[in-house]
Amino acid sequence: MEVINDLLNYNNLKIVQNSDWFNFSIDSVLLANFVKVNNKQKIIDFCTGNAPIPLFLSIKTKSKILGVELQKEVYDLAVKSVKLNALENQIEIMNEDVKNISNIFETDTFDLITCNPPYFKISDSANINSEKVKAIARHEIHLNLDDIFTCAKKILKNNGRIVMVHRTDRLIDIITTMKNNNIEPKRIQFVYPFMDSDSNLVLVEGSKNGKCGLIVEKNIVVHNSNGSYTDYINDIFNGGK
Amino acid sequence: MEVINDLLNYNNLKIVQNSDWFNFSIDSVLLANFVKVNNKQKIIDFCTGNAPIPLFLSIKTKSKILGVELQKEVYDLAVKSVKLNALENQIEIMNEDVKNISNIFETDTFDLITCNPPYFKISDSANINSEKVKAIARHEIHLNLDDIFTCAKKILKNNGRIVMVHRTDRLIDIITTMKNNNIEPKRIQFVYPFMDSDSNLVLVEGSKNGKCGLIVEKNIVVHNSNGSYTDYINDIFNGGK
Repeated sequence: MEVINDLLNYNNLKIVQNSDWFNFSIDSVLLANFVKVNNKQKIIDFCTGNAPIPLFLSIKTKSKILGVELQKEVYDLAVKSVKLNALENQIEIMNEDVKNISNIFETDTFDLITCNPPYFKISDSANINSEKVKAIARHEIHLNLDDIFTCAKKILKNNGRIVMVHRTDRLIDIITTMKNNNIEPKRIQFVYPFMDSDSNLVLVEGSKNGKCGLIVEKNIVVHNSNGSYTDYINDIFNGGK
Repeated sequence: MEVINDLLNYNNLKIVQNSDWFNFSIDSVLLANFVKVNNKQKIIDFCTGNAPIPLFLSIKTKSKILGVELQKEVYDLAVKSVKLNALENQIEIMNEDVKNISNIFETDTFDLITCNPPYFKISDSANINSEKVKAIARHEIHLNLDDIFTCAKKILKNNGRIVMVHRTDRLIDIITTMKNNNIEPKRIQFVYPFMDSDSNLVLVEGSKNGKCGLIVEKNIVVHNSNGSYTDYINDIFNGGK
């Protein structure tokens, strides 16, 4: 069922969702929080879904943002979300395959790529969702890490950055695939569901042809032991960060 | 000046140090805390220094431990420490170059390698210590990451593990060098000097020919904001961990 939700608690941004197969998650919130922007960048958001990341970024930057979404049904949600917030002048949504993006744009075009990609390898078939729209969004059916970084290497300007959220257990794949494409990991932030648990999500920023030298920033804990959001997370939703 | 110090607060282990150029640091304590051992392993400690890691591990395991130290002056401290604790039956110290270890032992010999290596690249020349003993212990003058993992690949048994403590800003080098030598990073734990600072140290466990899949464990904070040790660190020193 298609519904309209508030994106955050402190402004009027709305997002169009379809609760049957596509709700934005805290992953997008954390990615938008992690990314550093200014007002003179060309930004592209891969796997934009119903456009939560472009919407979040519109709070932090006046730069133009292009969202790319492969699936027509999900693209339609993104376009509705942009219109609903009257952000057509800042955010453009494209119904396109990320693998085709480097054929559409010149090399060295973008300053920043954001990406909340499909998390699961196809080999994790036990988890593949029978609903096709969900499955494509969650599994590396049409797009894998190598596709993403191969494209990033082409369309990023020199020292341009790609920022990704992913499952922590894929970090080694992410780092080796980045390095294979001359993208140097520069900043990492780990997300822990609870203070005493292992990390489940990771935020990674890489720089095209960047110099060696990594910063691992202070970690983020999402829930208090009683299950409620921590102050840090509430601050993001309430505009305190 | 050569002195004898307590290794921890809760047992009688002593360590011989030379305060002019070689005191064990919390890095070794954290490495020994991170490593998983049983009583049937062949363990080798690269860059053993004055042997803090073999001494710590003797609390956790009955397995034999071989410590390797290149520098004769530091090797002498290690031998004295082992004798002082009457651990000659469990710990052997070898005055040898790690680069030569794979010529001395057969391939597939060891279950576990521990290593607190020189942290700094030679190119960081501004930091090179004018005192030779310290400089060799701290800089990659005689041994770099590739030397370590090339040797590890040879002398480790299949699925044998190498556990290392290093500076967080070298993590990408560590991971790529491990992968180049068919050692899969399996467990990582980040150490933060303070709750709100970036991580300065990282603990990494890799497995020879191991399967993909990484766990990033809950992080360690060393100091409270007033500079005192956190409960977690005090528990290690006092035997509570």
